Amino acid sequence: MKEIKLQTFWTHAKPERVVWAVAEHDGNRSICPLGWKMRTSHKPPMMAISVAPTRYTHDLIVGAGAFVLAWPGRDLAEATLFCGTHSGRDTDKFAHAGLTPLPAQHVNAPLVKECVANLECTVVGQTTSGDHTIFVGEIVAAYMSETPGPLLCTINHACGYEFLLEDKGYRFGVVQDCDDPR
Amino acid sequence: MKEIKLQTFWTHAKPERVVWAVAEHDGNRSICPLGWKMRTSHKPPMMAISVAPTRYTHDLIVGAGAFVLAWPGRDLAEATLFCGTHSGRDTDKFAHAGLTPLPAQHVNAPLVKECVANLECTVVGQTTSGDHTIFVGEIVAAYMSETPGPLLCTINHACGYEFLLEDKGYRFGVVQDCDDPR
Repeated sequence: MKEIKLQTFWTHAKPERVVWAVAEHDGNRSICPLGWKMRTSHKPPMMAISVAPTRYTHDLIVGAGAFVLAWPGRDLAEATLFCGTHSGRDTDKFAHAGLTPLPAQHVNAPLVKECVANLECTVVGQTTSGDHTIFVGEIVAAYMSETPGPLLCTINHACGYEFLLEDKGYRFGVVQDCDDPR
Repeated sequence: MKEIKLQTFWTHAKPERVVWAVAEHDGNRSICPLGWKMRTSHKPPMMAISVAPTRYTHDLIVGAGAFVLAWPGRDLAEATLFCGTHSGRDTDKFAHAGLTPLPAQHVNAPLVKECVANLECTVVGQTTSGDHTIFVGEIVAAYMSETPGPLLCTINHACGYEFLLEDKGYRFGVVQDCDDPR
């Protein structure tokens, strides 16, 4: 056990599932991929996410008081990279990434048809944590694909993954499925 | 995309890395394994965890204003199960699980020698989220084993894992290493 630079640990701390925070306000919508999320209550069910105030999605969440957590699968590594490296201020991410918005039942934010799962969340708490904001969302509805595959992760070089894409400092994959042809 | 019971998604939402929140106050110490954690700030570096107020570790964290995040590896699936299914109120988890406390440099909470990594955290924020408390910890020191293996996860039945242990509703494993003999 020796002291290290923290970055060394972050590099080691894989896999990390990826989720998209999706928000819409005043006719504008965006998708912000993030790894910084956690469950935070059983009853009522809640998840918390950390979003930088510089993100366009941050202000849409504040404006709408709601967000959708859309969970990408193996087909959405490129879309995740696109959404994470462009701003919704000047790009319609749904159109550019070929994604289909679906209406939510209880919140003003779109579901994403191509994702493995979607959770509708109402903001019930917000607190500043360093250079990010923690949004606490109560989960008011959940949806899953009828053929759900594995969830997209940022990964390291271990052998149990199906590698998908590496670019711009990100490395994406899924844990190898039993029906993987390899 | 069809509406589901939320539990169906939680069952699918794997892998989830496991971390131990370790705390000490007034001569008492405990270890609380949890999956509900996230990074929440780059500068200064912070992590947030969700801990139920019913947990003994919760009150130790409040008392000390600090905690250690100790990251178990493949050798600590049994210790994780033990620590997660017993209370520190009546059990010395270090002694029972054969764990070695090491002194931290900056906080009043022990590191765990057998873990892959340890992060010393000072509590800088606390908020209630449903039936849990979110503690925001500023990371003031980081340590890693000189031979760090993969991090312990709760897993599903995908093929990319080295399966370790299943009991009491938990299923533990690590993503398969390239030097795994299988």
